[in-house]
Amino acid sequence: MMLTDIPTPAALIDETRMKDNIARMQAHMTALGVRLRPHVKTAKCIEVARRQQAEGASGITVSTLKEAEQFFAAGFDDILYAACITPNKIDRALALRRRGCRLTVIVDSIAAAEALAARGQAEQHAFDVMIEVDTDGHRSGVKPDDALLIGIAGTLHQGGAVVKGVMTHAGSSYDLNTHEALARLAEQERSLIVEAAARLRSAGLPCPEVSVGSTPTALCARDLSDVTEVRAGVYVFFDLVMSNVGVCTPHEIALSVLTTVIGHQTEKGWVIVDAGWMAMSRDRGTARHGIDYSYGAICGQDGRSLDDYIMTAANQEHGIVCRRDGQADPDIAQRFPIGSLLRVLPNHACATGAQFSAYQLIDGERAVATWERFDGW
Amino acid sequence: MMLTDIPTPAALIDETRMKDNIARMQAHMTALGVRLRPHVKTAKCIEVARRQQAEGASGITVSTLKEAEQFFAAGFDDILYAACITPNKIDRALALRRRGCRLTVIVDSIAAAEALAARGQAEQHAFDVMIEVDTDGHRSGVKPDDALLIGIAGTLHQGGAVVKGVMTHAGSSYDLNTHEALARLAEQERSLIVEAAARLRSAGLPCPEVSVGSTPTALCARDLSDVTEVRAGVYVFFDLVMSNVGVCTPHEIALSVLTTVIGHQTEKGWVIVDAGWMAMSRDRGTARHGIDYSYGAICGQDGRSLDDYIMTAANQEHGIVCRRDGQADPDIAQRFPIGSLLRVLPNHACATGAQFSAYQLIDGERAVATWERFDGW
Repeated sequence: MMLTDIPTPAALIDETRMKDNIARMQAHMTALGVRLRPHVKTAKCIEVARRQQAEGASGITVSTLKEAEQFFAAGFDDILYAACITPNKIDRALALRRRGCRLTVIVDSIAAAEALAARGQAEQHAFDVMIEVDTDGHRSGVKPDDALLIGIAGTLHQGGAVVKGVMTHAGSSYDLNTHEALARLAEQERSLIVEAAARLRSAGLPCPEVSVGSTPTALCARDLSDVTEVRAGVYVFFDLVMSNVGVCTPHEIALSVLTTVIGHQTEKGWVIVDAGWMAMSRDRGTARHGIDYSYGAICGQDGRSLDDYIMTAANQEHGIVCRRDGQADPDIAQRFPIGSLLRVLPNHACATGAQFSAYQLIDGERAVATWERFDGW
Repeated sequence: MMLTDIPTPAALIDETRMKDNIARMQAHMTALGVRLRPHVKTAKCIEVARRQQAEGASGITVSTLKEAEQFFAAGFDDILYAACITPNKIDRALALRRRGCRLTVIVDSIAAAEALAARGQAEQHAFDVMIEVDTDGHRSGVKPDDALLIGIAGTLHQGGAVVKGVMTHAGSSYDLNTHEALARLAEQERSLIVEAAARLRSAGLPCPEVSVGSTPTALCARDLSDVTEVRAGVYVFFDLVMSNVGVCTPHEIALSVLTTVIGHQTEKGWVIVDAGWMAMSRDRGTARHGIDYSYGAICGQDGRSLDDYIMTAANQEHGIVCRRDGQADPDIAQRFPIGSLLRVLPNHACATGAQFSAYQLIDGERAVATWERFDGW
């Protein structure tokens, strides 16, 4: 099937670029002597995770129990569910573990640790649990030097759960844009989580695993001593945010949205396309960056970048494409005739992928496979 | 089933509020003497459209051919596909029409009109077509006084297609916030589309239908003389954008996201919940308004507004809830304990609904039905 046969809008994966992205991250992790546990929330696609596994990844990270269930059903059995579990989700995690899934859950509070311990005791089941540590103040987790860390681990350990270790996510890396700053944050992420692990061990508690990760810190880390595994997700596709952060170029972005030109407003220099925010998502991650791509960067049907053009606005099923410099282009209707195809590189691959139920895997302008993705919780 | 039994995050429809919203719009349209053709892109849910039909709606509007196919399969046969059709979508529209669907398509260019006429002639099929007119400069359509209008209609008419009329969408209404300004825009929308219809008729071309619509202009219109039908979508649920525009209050918003508290950062006054942008969408429609709700307005499990709290940030599966005034709340962990439920009112109901594959219809704190919704193209 050729691109021209694909109903639009459609999510395309450039196979060569994805392969290179997977190889690059895996090689860096191998060089630093740590396991890579990819976060599959970006693609939510079995075939993509299989490519990561084939390249050397060890286990997967998920953001929802639905992902855990879907990937386990496809044969992935070493799974870290990386959002703090709550009482109303414990039975669903338990059901997965009883079916043979090596599912690890995380907590960052005494309340959740108690609920997990109590449920484990009632069911005579020992959950595998990691404690989330906050190494950059951006979201969840206990501070590495907080007494709570020992309290939570003690509650779990005495309650019969298996304390597998500590994990952190330096999500503030998305706000940086130099390798030097990212390398410093990677070292902060590493040193603080290692400090948390040391505190647990000093208190006589087990802590075999020390898990860190975000795509920018993973790619810019120079030393991961005493870390056992790295989690990263978006590197598999990359996106314009990652390009602005400085860890890829737009030419390495493997995900794009195929769209058809449906109209023009010639006086304004507008091309109207059939990919609106329902296809691109409402993510405007580059809005606060040096280069604001609005709703996406425009490429031709052949994937070559049309640097002067971006998608400047999006309604539900309409995107407005025009010159980045705001100049009206008098030849716009001839340059991009009704029915012609464009590709749009996304701000945020996780958000754009989520708008589609399948990807078209492409090799040049040929679609070589349809890969399902799932959504929901 | 009670709310506490529903896995989170979940999309809730408050049945009473939705019923009132449907009744209010239908009553206003009936009073103005026009038909209402609801835009089903907001809910993408058969049961919701059936409620609108039962209240008096006449036909539906869709944003994709997938919606047309799904609604036709459910018994809706009078459908306007309100995005300009392109050559690569004509055969799919034709297949629907041959199965008995009264599908009307739209165009705003000679190129699309020619493609439609040519395909119709080749297939000996007369498509029903409306011409999109631009009455407020916000997106697609030909200007009412542009020679192109007659050119397009002539191309269709001479090519054997049925020119059903003209349609417009005053989407710039979302940027206004007073009834007076919206009433003026509604009159602009009405008078310009009526002018376009008159020009077609003067040129000896047919123009039986004159279709306008957006939720704000529909609700604020005082006179719709010479208009035959109104299209509106988001009124069925309403949202925080519509509240800021001034056509509803937050207490009329029928769609909310049920979420569980998964953690706290007490020092910062943060509650972490399991609804992130994957549940809320990345829509930040209120960012440019007087009242910026960030990712949503917080209500208790019972639906009562907690006016002081909003969702200030969202990662994929994590939302951060805190006081709107930025003050840290020292009692936050006691006020919103781990495992407790909140409801979040969305910025944009069309975008938030799209993140879910089903709605839970609720009556108070009781879930009375699960209604499927569909997505994709």
